[in-house]
Amino acid sequence: MSQNNIPYKIYLSEDEIPKQWYNVRADMKNKPAPLLNPATMQPMGFDDLRPVFCDELIKQELDDTTAYIDIPDEIRSFYKMYRPSPLVRAYCLEKALGTPAKIYYKFEGNNTSGSHKLNSAIVQAYYAKQQGLKGVTTETGAGQWGTALSMASAYLGIDCKVYMVKVSYEQKPFRREVMRTYGASVTPSPSMDTEIGRKINAEHPGTTGSLGCAISEAVEVATKTEGYRYVLGSVLNQVLLHQTVIGLEAKAALDKYDITPDIIIGCAGGGSNLGGLISPFMGEKLRGEKDYQIIAIEPASCPSFTRGKFAYDFCDTGMVCPLAKMYTLGSNFIPSANHAGGLRYHGMSPILSQLYHDGYMEARSVEQTSVFEAAEQFARVEGILPAPESSHAIRAAIDEALKCKETGEEKTILFGLTGTGYFDMVAYQKFNDGEMSDYIPTDEELEKSFATLPKVNL
Amino acid sequence: MSQNNIPYKIYLSEDEIPKQWYNVRADMKNKPAPLLNPATMQPMGFDDLRPVFCDELIKQELDDTTAYIDIPDEIRSFYKMYRPSPLVRAYCLEKALGTPAKIYYKFEGNNTSGSHKLNSAIVQAYYAKQQGLKGVTTETGAGQWGTALSMASAYLGIDCKVYMVKVSYEQKPFRREVMRTYGASVTPSPSMDTEIGRKINAEHPGTTGSLGCAISEAVEVATKTEGYRYVLGSVLNQVLLHQTVIGLEAKAALDKYDITPDIIIGCAGGGSNLGGLISPFMGEKLRGEKDYQIIAIEPASCPSFTRGKFAYDFCDTGMVCPLAKMYTLGSNFIPSANHAGGLRYHGMSPILSQLYHDGYMEARSVEQTSVFEAAEQFARVEGILPAPESSHAIRAAIDEALKCKETGEEKTILFGLTGTGYFDMVAYQKFNDGEMSDYIPTDEELEKSFATLPKVNL
Repeated sequence: MSQNNIPYKIYLSEDEIPKQWYNVRADMKNKPAPLLNPATMQPMGFDDLRPVFCDELIKQELDDTTAYIDIPDEIRSFYKMYRPSPLVRAYCLEKALGTPAKIYYKFEGNNTSGSHKLNSAIVQAYYAKQQGLKGVTTETGAGQWGTALSMASAYLGIDCKVYMVKVSYEQKPFRREVMRTYGASVTPSPSMDTEIGRKINAEHPGTTGSLGCAISEAVEVATKTEGYRYVLGSVLNQVLLHQTVIGLEAKAALDKYDITPDIIIGCAGGGSNLGGLISPFMGEKLRGEKDYQIIAIEPASCPSFTRGKFAYDFCDTGMVCPLAKMYTLGSNFIPSANHAGGLRYHGMSPILSQLYHDGYMEARSVEQTSVFEAAEQFARVEGILPAPESSHAIRAAIDEALKCKETGEEKTILFGLTGTGYFDMVAYQKFNDGEMSDYIPTDEELEKSFATLPKVNL
Repeated sequence: MSQNNIPYKIYLSEDEIPKQWYNVRADMKNKPAPLLNPATMQPMGFDDLRPVFCDELIKQELDDTTAYIDIPDEIRSFYKMYRPSPLVRAYCLEKALGTPAKIYYKFEGNNTSGSHKLNSAIVQAYYAKQQGLKGVTTETGAGQWGTALSMASAYLGIDCKVYMVKVSYEQKPFRREVMRTYGASVTPSPSMDTEIGRKINAEHPGTTGSLGCAISEAVEVATKTEGYRYVLGSVLNQVLLHQTVIGLEAKAALDKYDITPDIIIGCAGGGSNLGGLISPFMGEKLRGEKDYQIIAIEPASCPSFTRGKFAYDFCDTGMVCPLAKMYTLGSNFIPSANHAGGLRYHGMSPILSQLYHDGYMEARSVEQTSVFEAAEQFARVEGILPAPESSHAIRAAIDEALKCKETGEEKTILFGLTGTGYFDMVAYQKFNDGEMSDYIPTDEELEKSFATLPKVNL
């Protein structure tokens, strides 16, 4: 079929929701490096991780050989409430750009959490419930992950404690209220509920918190409270595994119309969306069956892939969590205050880091004013108001489509539209008022941050 | 097919988007009364309405005999970006309620405007462009309509001037920024740009505005600016006509599975969603082909149907717009300040008013704390965070489903879920904090308001 006869939105049926997640590690020759125990600096096994994570999730975290892992029926039932998500042909954007390229995006924003995060939140909450736990703890910054976990916990009837970076708690009251509406308890971090919170409050009176501190608080509460475990929304292998529903659905929808993308683009913060989107395509590439140009897009103000080091580092600023081998800017790196586009994490998924290191994908960084320009252009013609995070991918997709306009190539571009920007209007306002600026960390700043990388001898 | 085998979401294909709107007036024995000229108190014809509305829209406004009106191809193309909207089977809600009832809802929130308003906004903007106009003006309160019109105008490349009630402009900056992102100019009303704005500002220094004043400003700008017309998001016959895509799609989806609803429920402010949802079903009822129980739900604090008078009244508080014969609380009625649930309009669609007057539908009012209880319950099990307006219908659907639980009846309930509540978190916060109260206007208050009804002798 000609690509001129594709519907605006390709919907799969509910029966076509994947029955298994795809574990790309099974097809990787060089496996991602294991997590290290921060106390001993030795690889962590199942028992080391049990105080923090649910048993079934640890198995998934450590399993780098099983290619397909069954999705439990109850999770598939939940997925049916908002999946399959549409694969959209961006006809209006193509027309506005005057490009011969064919652009498709997998839209993950059609659920109340407003992003793809729900795909993993429901899984983590499900296994916690299966294990007979009372609840889960987590941290949230901008709030997408916290919202997703609140929704999943409400659905399953387990408790959800969210530590929200204090500055977000105060400046994003609407996000906080969404979580409360779903029955979660939301605590501004640093709080006085935890040892580490009290310590940080004593050392830095009046601090507005950081993601690293919130992680440390959530982990402390999980490990010290009977019947609770900690859950995380990105970076971990298990999270990428759950997010492969994005890529599996996208591939099934494209296959239905015999479409093979030339270029696959995703934004990258911790890597959950990018990893989920590209995994099935990457699998074909790793097995030598097909080739794709795969591009990770990150903010120039937080450039883990493009300017970071591939090294063992702490996953949290508080240095209490396991270490992962990944592209990192150093665990105390904090993007400039003027950075409004999300994707603020200092590190990157170990799976994606290894794949990038081995040359299976590219990475580019983009500056935020150009990201918001792309967001606005996209919103006006495609109707969807994109999250700033997602707009990084839009920027790159537009750039690639404009290249095709110059060369006349009819490339097929697939990108991930991870979510909606309804709770990001402060950033849009800055952009609308012409008050948004760009920032790129200097080499000196990065060197200073790299100096905190731990020395690891394995 | 048994109703136990229905998918969670029934999606139609893009080919099944309606090709014609259905004009329920064609099947009404008693037609809705004509609009009256506020200067002469005489029925308004095509020429009387030309300074305010686009020609093609006036034709639709006045046409009460043509049953089906073609939808232009360009509008159907736009519809394809976000339609067909899903008809969702509320399995999770049914389970949570333990009811034998089968509940379906037509979800209109999956677009950036967050509601069904976009269905008519694109039509009105389209005909303005067809007529060679430069732009459109309108008013907005909460902002759903303004957002929808901004999106439609951006898509078609015409100008959009929105007069936003000043208190909303200040308290809902995010709504304002969404409209600006779509390129609309947004002016707090009353402004100093118009004669009526300056007059009101002089008479009431420091006023935070009202919807009626914003309407008057938008109409003044439209009639005094070369190449502009005024557009409205509800109440008018033309708007109900455009919104019939909701009901036509819902009916097509139900027909596909041989499902006949027993009860059809919609929230009612000006009537655009309710009218759109019920029209095709009402048509069958008017023609004597089928019977349905049709229920309009309105807030107890703004009870046009249940406590209003069926009389000619002004459509705006400023008394400069045409008069319509409708159920009204009086054009200077303003709901109590504690009312957070939307649906604040003093009047009601003339079409729905006539149908209600003739006994073809019922109406009920509900109090807002019970509305937010229903909203929260729905959000937790169905995942979608509903707009307060839509939650009025949820309340009634839950009540009907609970009645079925008592009687054991397996009734099929269809309701309209008009939109999402992302920009209504201030109201949710009030509810979460236990600070929401109910208010019902006293008979004395209503009598005072009825006293302003104009005397009309036709």
